[in-house]
Amino acid sequence: MDDGGGGPVPEELGAEECMTLISPGGVGRVGFCTATGPLVLPVNYTTHEGGVLFRTAFGGPMDEQLDTGVRGVEFKVAFEVDRIDTTTREGWSVLVQGAAHRIAAEDELTAAKAVAVEPWAGGERRLYIRISPVQITGRRIRHP
Amino acid sequence: MDDGGGGPVPEELGAEECMTLISPGGVGRVGFCTATGPLVLPVNYTTHEGGVLFRTAFGGPMDEQLDTGVRGVEFKVAFEVDRIDTTTREGWSVLVQGAAHRIAAEDELTAAKAVAVEPWAGGERRLYIRISPVQITGRRIRHP
Repeated sequence: MDDGGGGPVPEELGAEECMTLISPGGVGRVGFCTATGPLVLPVNYTTHEGGVLFRTAFGGPMDEQLDTGVRGVEFKVAFEVDRIDTTTREGWSVLVQGAAHRIAAEDELTAAKAVAVEPWAGGERRLYIRISPVQITGRRIRHP
Repeated sequence: MDDGGGGPVPEELGAEECMTLISPGGVGRVGFCTATGPLVLPVNYTTHEGGVLFRTAFGGPMDEQLDTGVRGVEFKVAFEVDRIDTTTREGWSVLVQGAAHRIAAEDELTAAKAVAVEPWAGGERRLYIRISPVQITGRRIRHP
């Protein structure tokens, strides 16, 4: 009976390697806490100058949460990216923990637009968000 | 200039369709709040009798959080599954919001083991968790 002890022990990845792994961009999942509990939402993201950039909707759940942090309290988020092959059961996952900010400064906004963060879903998603990492951790599974 | 308005508007999915989409199991991401901020972790999961089952490590971050809820406060989690084709930019995502519990009752544990929730990562992962959904939402993107 396999009661949970099997399989290879994951290898911890350094922050630099994690950033390299997620730097091509694509689909990630952003997690944050709300008054009614946590949320996890998929986003198309890119990386730019050590941060994670994505676009979301004005008036959406993230926009509302950002407003709760106006009194100098940072809005903490978790951002997860993984590439896991469910057939070979090998792959990696990266977790970025940090603070999320609306990109408001014109120069940063220009940079964000220049790297073309395409939202996965259409509709009105004109709110640019930058995650400034505080901690970056990751793990990789390889079979011998 | 694409400043965020392009692309198809996502179609909202009903709870029943969402459960059908995630019922084969595979890799999902569980999000929860801790004293130092939110976390999002990939897990191998399966569905069983309307709930989401997965396995994690004793003493890991989720185990610690479960202990904070012993005084009758439910431990709220978000569980996200998606299948997004980054080439065609079509796909779906499902978000399960609910309470997480350790599976302790012998009959439920037997059921959980019978459906073979294989942990993605190896090592000591003998803690079985069940998420009892409170809200199930999802969206699908299709191009015309």
